[in-house]
Amino acid sequence: MIRRLSDDEKTTLLLRRHLGRLGCILDGMIPYVVPINYVFDGENIYSHSLPGTKIDALRMNPNACLQVDEISDEFHWQSVIVVGEYEEITTDDERFLALAQLLAGLPGLTPVESFHDHAPAPARAVVFRIRIREVTGVAEW
Amino acid sequence: MIRRLSDDEKTTLLLRRHLGRLGCILDGMIPYVVPINYVFDGENIYSHSLPGTKIDALRMNPNACLQVDEISDEFHWQSVIVVGEYEEITTDDERFLALAQLLAGLPGLTPVESFHDHAPAPARAVVFRIRIREVTGVAEW
Repeated sequence: MIRRLSDDEKTTLLLRRHLGRLGCILDGMIPYVVPINYVFDGENIYSHSLPGTKIDALRMNPNACLQVDEISDEFHWQSVIVVGEYEEITTDDERFLALAQLLAGLPGLTPVESFHDHAPAPARAVVFRIRIREVTGVAEW
Repeated sequence: MIRRLSDDEKTTLLLRRHLGRLGCILDGMIPYVVPINYVFDGENIYSHSLPGTKIDALRMNPNACLQVDEISDEFHWQSVIVVGEYEEITTDDERFLALAQLLAGLPGLTPVESFHDHAPAPARAVVFRIRIREVTGVAEW
């Protein structure tokens, strides 16, 4: 009834979806989960965020998890869990490439991103990747 | 644009929804997120699970997080984060009450739960609550 997803199925789900739930750890011991938009380039997860709780947490402990699913009902769903390392993208070239990937995957992002990129430094969006260590996935159907 | 939810709005969202993403911590340092069905009774979160990775993790570190959202699109959403303590429900009376709450909130659950409750002990569903310490919530609309 519940089965493991194949590598192809996990990749396909990560590529198709752009909404996931990011897990990180606060204060060394409190799990913290927030919805994020992301893009998967076949190798790593890319996303962006204003500075705040999750960025502070990930700077302290770079272990990150991204859970992505498609749920029809409680007996028909698939879910993938990516575990990897948070890595901030700070050089202009890499930041440009990462933002281009995000904008291509998330067209609605354009106005916010261009606003953020022209905002004063403190409010500037943090661009980051999750360097994937492991992907697991299960489905019930 | 992004605002904090009031206590009433947070409670209403938790009562209305039955799907959340549970965050816990593996091996003392790896965040782990899985989708779960839950019921909120106005005080605590109730759920159940077969034994496995998340139950092992929560027995080691009872700090748990439940993230619940309603997302229309990337600029119209609300999200609540519950932080609390995992607590297994083991006495027959409490287990009966908790399962009754779960079945009332999740009618589709009946066949699985009755199957699990008649299964041999190792596969018996774990019933648990998250004793809520704090609820935060934000919305963009």
